[in-house]
Amino acid sequence: MPSVRVAGVGVTPFGNAPERTGRDLFGEASATAFADAGVDRDDVEALYYGNFMGEMAEHQGHQGPLMAEAAGIRAPATRYETACASSGAAVRQAVKDVRNGESDVLLVGGAERMTNMGTAGATEALAIAADDLWEVRQGTTFPGAYALMARAYFEAYGGTREELAEIAVKNHANAVDNELAQYNSEITVEQALDAPMISEPLGLYDSCPISDGASAAVLVSDEYAEREGIDAPVAITGTGQGGDRLALHDREHLATSPAADDAAAEAYDDAEIAASDVDFAEVHDCFTIAEVLAIESLGLYERGEGIGAAARGETTADGDVPVNLSGGLKAKGHPVGATGVAQIADVVKLLQGDHVNGDAVPDANVGVAHNAGGTVASAVVHVLEVAA
Amino acid sequence: MPSVRVAGVGVTPFGNAPERTGRDLFGEASATAFADAGVDRDDVEALYYGNFMGEMAEHQGHQGPLMAEAAGIRAPATRYETACASSGAAVRQAVKDVRNGESDVLLVGGAERMTNMGTAGATEALAIAADDLWEVRQGTTFPGAYALMARAYFEAYGGTREELAEIAVKNHANAVDNELAQYNSEITVEQALDAPMISEPLGLYDSCPISDGASAAVLVSDEYAEREGIDAPVAITGTGQGGDRLALHDREHLATSPAADDAAAEAYDDAEIAASDVDFAEVHDCFTIAEVLAIESLGLYERGEGIGAAARGETTADGDVPVNLSGGLKAKGHPVGATGVAQIADVVKLLQGDHVNGDAVPDANVGVAHNAGGTVASAVVHVLEVAA
Repeated sequence: MPSVRVAGVGVTPFGNAPERTGRDLFGEASATAFADAGVDRDDVEALYYGNFMGEMAEHQGHQGPLMAEAAGIRAPATRYETACASSGAAVRQAVKDVRNGESDVLLVGGAERMTNMGTAGATEALAIAADDLWEVRQGTTFPGAYALMARAYFEAYGGTREELAEIAVKNHANAVDNELAQYNSEITVEQALDAPMISEPLGLYDSCPISDGASAAVLVSDEYAEREGIDAPVAITGTGQGGDRLALHDREHLATSPAADDAAAEAYDDAEIAASDVDFAEVHDCFTIAEVLAIESLGLYERGEGIGAAARGETTADGDVPVNLSGGLKAKGHPVGATGVAQIADVVKLLQGDHVNGDAVPDANVGVAHNAGGTVASAVVHVLEVAA
Repeated sequence: MPSVRVAGVGVTPFGNAPERTGRDLFGEASATAFADAGVDRDDVEALYYGNFMGEMAEHQGHQGPLMAEAAGIRAPATRYETACASSGAAVRQAVKDVRNGESDVLLVGGAERMTNMGTAGATEALAIAADDLWEVRQGTTFPGAYALMARAYFEAYGGTREELAEIAVKNHANAVDNELAQYNSEITVEQALDAPMISEPLGLYDSCPISDGASAAVLVSDEYAEREGIDAPVAITGTGQGGDRLALHDREHLATSPAADDAAAEAYDDAEIAASDVDFAEVHDCFTIAEVLAIESLGLYERGEGIGAAARGETTADGDVPVNLSGGLKAKGHPVGATGVAQIADVVKLLQGDHVNGDAVPDANVGVAHNAGGTVASAVVHVLEVAA
């Protein structure tokens, strides 16, 4: 079976860019990825692209062909949509296709415009990731939904707002030198606790921002890389996807994420690794509580133990298993459709030793990316390793 | 390599059902498909689902998990979006996954709600399949875009409104006994020519209607079918996808569809058949001119020869290669996300001899489904055959 290698990655700065179009953003990200990869655009066999709210943000569906043109390729293009896990799902198909010998060279990526809608508009658009009939029409927003999950967690396992704040503090600290991140400022626990409450117990600093941005990666088979002399030392060795009921009230428990549990188990099994092999992870911290659920789903912590990981210094940059060395969604930003592939980009750079926070994981061989949709009704997990 | 079999199909009536939700429609289609298949829902490994305008029509994104629940399955679910070819793209991945041994049982399908938006609302929502910046904002609608394509065709190859009308007459005639079709009424050439002009040269009867509906199919590996005693004589033997520039002005010619040419060539090559092997086809006749472009892309006609095929009685039910025995999008209806899998359903029934128009192709072994997105910036073609 061919090994899937990441030949190149490209990510735009994440942040406020309401004047830039989706095609402009993805054109930049893909150009960076091609330059990094040294791969001929004519060799690309397909684009798998993630986008979530383009219909509402740009009045633009059918973005696959548009983004193929922006990337300068002429190939079939398909959009994947699993809410905030959209480009993670796109990566998953690309991995399958390369492994199965269907393709040697694929472009994956994603983009999202959000700030042009304003905060209220973006919040409303994000809400379509929840169940419109049973959640959104009753007033549920995502901060509200994750607040319910946080409360359920506290009730089941214990936990404090201070422990959540430590996660935000950690992720802001990781983003200080990341020039692509939306925020480069450190924050303190006190600042986080004193910030405006959004939905009890989640305050402003428990929440990721609204962001514009794009990401891209060129995936190739090991045979292609060898034949063409492409330097691509990082392999995607495991892929997993899980699904759950869309609406929170249909779940068995609000403080667990079976979709992510399943995705992680499948990805680890696929890569033939165990959670104990993971050196670091990029996880979907749309809210601080989401990072807790993620590291528990990834098996890095037992249920109820993830809440204190940042406070104990275990997932910080100098900890045993650093989480979100990029700054995470919290500080790096979260242009929804771009996030899954942006996580892949950070993991690749960390494994290759060319990441701004690479010193935190100098001998890392195994990194994991955890991308979640909605209140984790969808989850995609990928394992990346330095190829032998 | 496993053979991909269609174990069961289900399609709701297409038409006006503004009171029905997407989940309700897909629940019905998938229940019919499971009943037809005799497959245990617990065996389903994933849902690949097509939807185009759910964000606008229902304020509902992230439909994958929602539709998995509606179908009564617990499995990862991903939405595919390539405008009107969305569920065709979903089928394509399912075919790859079964063939490559990734999965034995997959649910594919699609749904769309449109009539609740009203004609003007649905027309505006459909427009997001075109380039918002360069087409939609200049006033382009899909009837307008296809009218440009028809004019270009007439200019390049000749053709008349009467010849287009014959296509509408044929497809209405095919739908008379199709109880799932939106229209069961025959029309005459005179009626078509006298109908209100929508965008010269396309009149009301050159255009498919706005429709609600859903479709589903259960795909299995031949090994699974044999092991479980599932009757699934029809195989999907070829899959192809093509892409083109999104905006019409970026195309080399308005009267050709390179994306569909590529998709057909790939699907035929994959199935190891030639166009001359095709016994009948279901094609994407969103407008009458689209059927002409489709049958030329499928190689059933040389460029410039497809326009007269219906008028000459070659693609009618009693013709040599019947096209759109279902009634086509024109008379069957076109709930966008459902169309690709609905085409598969009709091809399967025609090959199995249990279609209302099955007498037209009593000894057919090879049927083709052609699903197009936008002004054919995306196209997906599948070849289905009675398994040996």
